Amino acid sequence: MQASGWPSVITMAGPGSPIVAPFMMSVPASNWSLQPQLENDSALVGDLPLSRLLVMKDANYPWLLLVPRRAGVSDLIDLGEPEQAQLMAEIACASRALKAITSCDKLNVAALGNIVPQLHVHIIARRNGDAAWPKPVWGAAPAKACAPEALAQLIAALRRAIPLA
Amino acid sequence: MQASGWPSVITMAGPGSPIVAPFMMSVPASNWSLQPQLENDSALVGDLPLSRLLVMKDANYPWLLLVPRRAGVSDLIDLGEPEQAQLMAEIACASRALKAITSCDKLNVAALGNIVPQLHVHIIARRNGDAAWPKPVWGAAPAKACAPEALAQLIAALRRAIPLA
Repeated sequence: MQASGWPSVITMAGPGSPIVAPFMMSVPASNWSLQPQLENDSALVGDLPLSRLLVMKDANYPWLLLVPRRAGVSDLIDLGEPEQAQLMAEIACASRALKAITSCDKLNVAALGNIVPQLHVHIIARRNGDAAWPKPVWGAAPAKACAPEALAQLIAALRRAIPLA
Repeated sequence: MQASGWPSVITMAGPGSPIVAPFMMSVPASNWSLQPQLENDSALVGDLPLSRLLVMKDANYPWLLLVPRRAGVSDLIDLGEPEQAQLMAEIACASRALKAITSCDKLNVAALGNIVPQLHVHIIARRNGDAAWPKPVWGAAPAKACAPEALAQLIAALRRAIPLA
């Protein structure tokens, strides 16, 4: 498996110009830990008020995960209404950053969880001609190892664009 | 192709006991029409304040679509923030109703749109052992024709459970 970068990742503006404002809502932590398979398949970007932001280690697509730090939550409707609203704000924040960084053609946003039930939201930057296009990414192409410097570059761009704890 | 119902659809409580409260927000209409492929593949349930609620005519899964009635919108982040929040409220409302009606094992919620760019959110009731389980539904099994009475029963249950215009 060849280690690759994401050809569409471009450099963002510097740390003085975040593309989103800080969140108004602060959510307390709870008894929660990241499910091991999600941890194994991803790299940490940082924490938003509700969710942990991760990058999937698959060079086929720039692919984020948002995982609300709430124990025992599997479906969106297992969150309370304020947390649902906060999750939507965090999805929008991460989506805007990912679109700005990658100049992608389309965003795919999904909460599936049939195999890993811990609630996690996929946010995937899709490009006409990518490894699965126009199909959804799941099961479409084997994961492709990421070059460490490409992964670090994407994480750094996300950290500049998103106000993280 | 055999016309079938959804084996997991159960009858809801009567019209006097909606499972959700009416929405607080009213959103004005705009120049919008449902994309023809979505219209062809689905049956109308009704309108929420922001979105049209549809049932996909695929007896493999109880499968809803929410389509915000906004022209030219492809990604979640193309909506304004109040509309994003409203869409999340409508996703939660439709999801709760679908889960109550079907007693499903898992909900799958996704906004993909690689083929049909008009923003639409899939809400799918998944069951361990269904035609695609545990994979995502897209491309997993050919659509299975719905028996008209099963489709009508699901639509009626949704209309009892959800406050529609």
